[in-house]
Amino acid sequence: MKLWQKETEVEQSVEKFTVGNDRALDIFLAPFDVLGSLAHTQMLESIGLLTKDELAVIQEELKKIYREIETGGFTIDEHVEDVHSQIELLLTQRIGDAGKKIHSGRSRNDQVLVDLKLYFRNEIKQIVENTKFLFELLIELSNQYREVLMPGYTHLQIAMPSSFGLWFGAYAESLVDDLELMLAAWKICNKNPLGSAAGYGSSFPLNRTLTTELLGFETLNYNVVYAQMGRGKTERVLAQGMSAIAASLAKMAMDACLYMNQNFGFISFPDKLTTGSSIMPHKKNPDVFELIRARCNKIQALPNEIALMTTNLPSGYHRDLQLLKENLFPAFQSINDCLQMMHLMLSNIKVNTNILENPKYNYLFSVEVVNHEVLQGVPFREAYKNIGLAIEKGTFKPIKEVKHTHEGSIGNLQNKEIKNLFDKVLGEFGFHKVDRALKELLQ
Amino acid sequence: MKLWQKETEVEQSVEKFTVGNDRALDIFLAPFDVLGSLAHTQMLESIGLLTKDELAVIQEELKKIYREIETGGFTIDEHVEDVHSQIELLLTQRIGDAGKKIHSGRSRNDQVLVDLKLYFRNEIKQIVENTKFLFELLIELSNQYREVLMPGYTHLQIAMPSSFGLWFGAYAESLVDDLELMLAAWKICNKNPLGSAAGYGSSFPLNRTLTTELLGFETLNYNVVYAQMGRGKTERVLAQGMSAIAASLAKMAMDACLYMNQNFGFISFPDKLTTGSSIMPHKKNPDVFELIRARCNKIQALPNEIALMTTNLPSGYHRDLQLLKENLFPAFQSINDCLQMMHLMLSNIKVNTNILENPKYNYLFSVEVVNHEVLQGVPFREAYKNIGLAIEKGTFKPIKEVKHTHEGSIGNLQNKEIKNLFDKVLGEFGFHKVDRALKELLQ
Amino acid sequence: MKLWQKETEVEQSVEKFTVGNDRALDIFLAPFDVLGSLAHTQMLESIGLLTKDELAVIQEELKKIYREIETGGFTIDEHVEDVHSQIELLLTQRIGDAGKKIHSGRSRNDQVLVDLKLYFRNEIKQIVENTKFLFELLIELSNQYREVLMPGYTHLQIAMPSSFGLWFGAYAESLVDDLELMLAAWKICNKNPLGSAAGYGSSFPLNRTLTTELLGFETLNYNVVYAQMGRGKTERVLAQGMSAIAASLAKMAMDACLYMNQNFGFISFPDKLTTGSSIMPHKKNPDVFELIRARCNKIQALPNEIALMTTNLPSGYHRDLQLLKENLFPAFQSINDCLQMMHLMLSNIKVNTNILENPKYNYLFSVEVVNHEVLQGVPFREAYKNIGLAIEKGTFKPIKEVKHTHEGSIGNLQNKEIKNLFDKVLGEFGFHKVDRALKELLQ
Amino acid sequence: MKLWQKETEVEQSVEKFTVGNDRALDIFLAPFDVLGSLAHTQMLESIGLLTKDELAVIQEELKKIYREIETGGFTIDEHVEDVHSQIELLLTQRIGDAGKKIHSGRSRNDQVLVDLKLYFRNEIKQIVENTKFLFELLIELSNQYREVLMPGYTHLQIAMPSSFGLWFGAYAESLVDDLELMLAAWKICNKNPLGSAAGYGSSFPLNRTLTTELLGFETLNYNVVYAQMGRGKTERVLAQGMSAIAASLAKMAMDACLYMNQNFGFISFPDKLTTGSSIMPHKKNPDVFELIRARCNKIQALPNEIALMTTNLPSGYHRDLQLLKENLFPAFQSINDCLQMMHLMLSNIKVNTNILENPKYNYLFSVEVVNHEVLQGVPFREAYKNIGLAIEKGTFKPIKEVKHTHEGSIGNLQNKEIKNLFDKVLGEFGFHKVDRALKELLQ
Repeated sequence: MKLWQKETEVEQSVEKFTVGNDRALDIFLAPFDVLGSLAHTQMLESIGLLTKDELAVIQEELKKIYREIETGGFTIDEHVEDVHSQIELLLTQRIGDAGKKIHSGRSRNDQVLVDLKLYFRNEIKQIVENTKFLFELLIELSNQYREVLMPGYTHLQIAMPSSFGLWFGAYAESLVDDLELMLAAWKICNKNPLGSAAGYGSSFPLNRTLTTELLGFETLNYNVVYAQMGRGKTERVLAQGMSAIAASLAKMAMDACLYMNQNFGFISFPDKLTTGSSIMPHKKNPDVFELIRARCNKIQALPNEIALMTTNLPSGYHRDLQLLKENLFPAFQSINDCLQMMHLMLSNIKVNTNILENPKYNYLFSVEVVNHEVLQGVPFREAYKNIGLAIEKGTFKPIKEVKHTHEGSIGNLQNKEIKNLFDKVLGEFGFHKVDRALKELLQ
Repeated sequence: MKLWQKETEVEQSVEKFTVGNDRALDIFLAPFDVLGSLAHTQMLESIGLLTKDELAVIQEELKKIYREIETGGFTIDEHVEDVHSQIELLLTQRIGDAGKKIHSGRSRNDQVLVDLKLYFRNEIKQIVENTKFLFELLIELSNQYREVLMPGYTHLQIAMPSSFGLWFGAYAESLVDDLELMLAAWKICNKNPLGSAAGYGSSFPLNRTLTTELLGFETLNYNVVYAQMGRGKTERVLAQGMSAIAASLAKMAMDACLYMNQNFGFISFPDKLTTGSSIMPHKKNPDVFELIRARCNKIQALPNEIALMTTNLPSGYHRDLQLLKENLFPAFQSINDCLQMMHLMLSNIKVNTNILENPKYNYLFSVEVVNHEVLQGVPFREAYKNIGLAIEKGTFKPIKEVKHTHEGSIGNLQNKEIKNLFDKVLGEFGFHKVDRALKELLQ
Repeated sequence: MKLWQKETEVEQSVEKFTVGNDRALDIFLAPFDVLGSLAHTQMLESIGLLTKDELAVIQEELKKIYREIETGGFTIDEHVEDVHSQIELLLTQRIGDAGKKIHSGRSRNDQVLVDLKLYFRNEIKQIVENTKFLFELLIELSNQYREVLMPGYTHLQIAMPSSFGLWFGAYAESLVDDLELMLAAWKICNKNPLGSAAGYGSSFPLNRTLTTELLGFETLNYNVVYAQMGRGKTERVLAQGMSAIAASLAKMAMDACLYMNQNFGFISFPDKLTTGSSIMPHKKNPDVFELIRARCNKIQALPNEIALMTTNLPSGYHRDLQLLKENLFPAFQSINDCLQMMHLMLSNIKVNTNILENPKYNYLFSVEVVNHEVLQGVPFREAYKNIGLAIEKGTFKPIKEVKHTHEGSIGNLQNKEIKNLFDKVLGEFGFHKVDRALKELLQ
Repeated sequence: MKLWQKETEVEQSVEKFTVGNDRALDIFLAPFDVLGSLAHTQMLESIGLLTKDELAVIQEELKKIYREIETGGFTIDEHVEDVHSQIELLLTQRIGDAGKKIHSGRSRNDQVLVDLKLYFRNEIKQIVENTKFLFELLIELSNQYREVLMPGYTHLQIAMPSSFGLWFGAYAESLVDDLELMLAAWKICNKNPLGSAAGYGSSFPLNRTLTTELLGFETLNYNVVYAQMGRGKTERVLAQGMSAIAASLAKMAMDACLYMNQNFGFISFPDKLTTGSSIMPHKKNPDVFELIRARCNKIQALPNEIALMTTNLPSGYHRDLQLLKENLFPAFQSINDCLQMMHLMLSNIKVNTNILENPKYNYLFSVEVVNHEVLQGVPFREAYKNIGLAIEKGTFKPIKEVKHTHEGSIGNLQNKEIKNLFDKVLGEFGFHKVDRALKELLQ
């Protein structure tokens, strides 16, 4: 049974093709669909389209359904088209005609829109929390290994002294900037599209400001045509936010694979966190990092996929938009897994503390020697030439002490300042406001 | 139990993360894994690594497993890592120690490689068959509607007379060129990587030419390092082949959505093939075409995803490659669905046969009038100017008969020649050679 | 002459390949390179690496070069590798040895980094200004045409009444959300990488906080390894910011092409803004919109290009990063052109004010009729069924008055609220702080 | 002056925006535009639209213009819109009215289409020749270094013995498969679109078969609507062909950067082929490989860019297609540069011949030892376990001789067979047929 079904039967293969695996993906939206209906029905009552009594019955039953969803007892029947229909059906079965009235003043279009925004807010919060969890470990490791030097490379060539303090801290700071993009995604998600109906508004005297408050949105997608345009766009922006974090994780994973390689040998992990080979008994493979890298690169491909699927579609809803769920929804799990696995791996890292004892790293100190001459008054370009010739002639002598003191350098990591930056961005999300509103709605 | 498992337990979360949904995807590889083992074991016997008796027992049991897979009775146990381990395990449980010997001279790396190539060949064949099915319908419709004119647009502006004969025929011919890319993918798939072991060959005196023949491959991936490089590359090329077909289907679906739009009104479909709206009772929506378009655009994003996941990985196997299955494998089903649904829709198309009677299409004939003057001796640029001024002054009179006679024009579609082109490319795949070899292997 | 040149000659073809068209692109960086040097040298003096007299001479000459750049009198000589070398060379030619000292404590790596960030800030400002200019026109047009109805489409099917007020307003509001992404890009750009040297800091006692203030940066990229990681990442984020605006423009351009199509005929433009055809004298083609669409889709492809070029590179500088300039720098001009051309076109738009008089649009009002029944007490699902049957039987009668009153609907556009949203995001950039700092630096 | 210009002036900014840098890109098409006109006019004479005398004058002058283009004496005037107009203008200035007649029976649309296909054929030929040049060097190096062992890695972990013979040979064989995609692109390019006019054919009795023969095309794009659809599609397919080669080069460049890294130290290059650092006098950076990698990754992004710019455009010409030239045309130069620079670098490679003497590579031989036990009758899984335990206990003894004999392994590279594969694909292009036809046309 489909709500829009007319007197003709839709061919079964058409139905199979059009529904696809939407039912499975819609399960993720179920709690948010209930939240949307809780707000929508309160509003309907406020404008006289539901009676107080109808509202009371509806709200009680919706909250019951919400708890059923939370405890895993909710499914979408095979003959029901989507989560919205299923919830409306349940309601109507249980409370009768009043259930039929909850669709007044909205369309499946704005119902999906608001479900998605509520769902995305929830997912962003989880991602941000996992990011925070990893950020804090990175800062901790940076502090812990601030004295352990390692080679710094440019062009993959041995370049200058670096440190594990710098390495861990760099990825911590990277997450700060990544959060800025996620914050942009959050702000775009945190606007209420409900009331835009099929994308052109409604002749009902809806109070969209009320549902905005009830659902804890910061503001509205005012223009109803724009509210509908948010479909596809919100997904793309959110995918870009995730891809920022993903890019940082992928890069760190690449570093880790390289540093675990026996030619580098900078870091290692307990056997339980590496895997073996079916034919090479000595292997300890960095599969977790490889899969973090691969998963994150896949997430980086997501914004482009969404762009390709939505570009050159004129304004107004198109069924194409339904398919955006397929790769986006699993990406939430994937990015959270990657954040957690990165945390697990780094919690178990063993750092090689005497890397620079190997004489092949002596050249790391050539700039130090150049700078030493400069500080004694030799113009930079001349000092550079002198040391270059010494290296060519094999007479170069490294000065192995590293006295970097400026902001953000080996001797002055400024992790506290980086933490301040992180906390500042974090604070701008304002998750508590949203939490409070939803809690009230469910009481 | 994992075959490479050493004396330490891999943490459960690591296992969950690294295995991912690989077991579910590996099911698609099961029959091909058996085929690979049938060939590999015959070869092992030929070089003395299995006895005739061992081989007989192994082959009988493998064929039995093959039939179990075909009839849906095969699953990968939860504690087993992948399809290769599962089949080897089954074999060992049923026939004892001989089962353990079948892994000699190969690695999971070349086992996956050969499984993928066999699987891809099979999928390409199905896609090509569905493409042929659609191609034939398009030619048929082109012939059927060769007399029905429609407006041709450039810049989405009414331009010149076109016809449904041209429109259907154009997409038929498009599929010819698309097959060229698929043929390239086929040729790249149709080379045997087995024997490359972990990507560096083996000290066993393998006879790779023998397995090449047994599995019906055209030739070998000779160089074992290159054989391994084929992972990721084969997937990308195959995705490009699918994306060519997808681009044609997506374009035709866009046309169909536009032509079904009431402002055009060129084509329509029975109610059973369109869907309705939850709030607008008059709607007959082209959901099938929208979802063909979206699915095909998604397939068009696939080669880029694969590129992003494999770019800048140095040579040699990386675990990243495992994740390529996730979006690629479902794409096979998706492209076949799209080809079949396009066939279903077009089989039911209703064409509006009197479109050009509407006077708004009169300007379509302006070029005809220009050409008419040219054939009477007026230089083209002058005739063009004359008609342009007539249009501006409102004195333009269309000549509504269309007498296009040259190759590929309204009056001379040359669908027979287009069919010849299609059959020529089709013939180059040589599916029968592969079928014959596999049939023999299974006897 | 290259600054790093040793005693061997680099083969000419290698030089041609490695320099590429970097000189041409570096011209864009010239004023910002001078700004960076002005700040860096002030800081060098403050830590005793330049004397007051040296600083005075250097600053005077740098400001002179800045003015030469502004007036177009600056070029990069063919034998000079890049803009940094050119400016240093000029300086040394003009003021002698002191010129050689300005490179102390920095590397070309952080010099490019800071140049890029300064350049990007400048470009973001221009893009945001052009966005504001277009936003204001859209709001104005929305207000002007608030009474003019047009059909709203879903699935490209005639759906419900819309208006030009909604249409223009929707794209105005779209730009608000687009600015959020641009703001994220701005915040990421507005951090000082100078002092990170080759990506591992320096043994000089640099005062990075001082250069941060002098250059008007909000804060530092603290960690020097992260500062270097910003290369590639900043470009990607900025490209994402541009692609958000681009997506809105491309969509509006697609709408415009459709609405100019004679089957729609909703809008038109004066002849001077359309183009003709070489063979069809009646054509008035929407080339400007087509090229806005194409340029914007190209910009949408840019983040992915950058991702593909940087993914899987381990940390530390790689020469690959140089090539990111090639498509990014021209994109600034391109997005600004698109914003301005969209403004020009819309300033000249002619709107068809009696579209809905055509009876084919009657069905637009079916939902109104359904809602009318609902307001009289009929449950929604039943009213829906009644009207659906009336449409099937041909007895449907539209109620053509549209009384949408809720927030963001036809009768209540809330453009003022949308403008408030825009101004709020705009205010967060804080361009004036940056302007003030740079003005001071140049005094 | 524009050929389609009506009595109104197009605003200058519109012209600047719509023409863009098309004039500069059109220069690449000039010789091919003349070739197209040579064939088109011969055909026009054959159907009576030109007299024999007119044809003679036109052909002589066109050939003169062709020679002027070849010797660099051709430019597009600033007030002329494109290359087609420029050539027609020159002709008319020089030979009068007959010049105006050459546009009969064609549109700029099919003129661009045929110019592009002729240009692309020419570029494919050059790319294939450069690919052959590199292929032959790789085979030569593979043979030369067949005895030099190196570590083979999986998961970037030391895995099994490999050799420089395998490494060079692998990339040679990779180019074979890459050519298959280029061959598909060639076949799609090698079909004649001329005569499709604006995409809907012409009322002139054109002989498209004649122009097909004259221009050396293998066959026609028969259907004129499909001929027009080739625009965008041909570009995308060609970009995919280039991206296949690019992916191989990028991977080899990544390997080279890694192997030049001091932690590997497998290969090195003379100073003249590496670059230095502005602050680190000891650096010898692999800039050429980094830029090959970056350029090739950029080319890999090209098919996606084209897809994004063309997806969801309905059939028929759109001005968007003009912009595809911008990144595609420079990519030809770029891929040829990369092929040549890779050749230059590899011609100068110094291979470290005693890599495996370092004991850290002993584990490479663990599989050999396992296989050794297997050949003595121990079941594989038991042998594997034994050696694994020996490694854990530190009692493992490598057997350092490598006796790989099977097809494609260290001891049996089969470079001759790989060369046969290459030559077979190469032969399918049939460049000589095209060369012969064009030579005749120009006589």
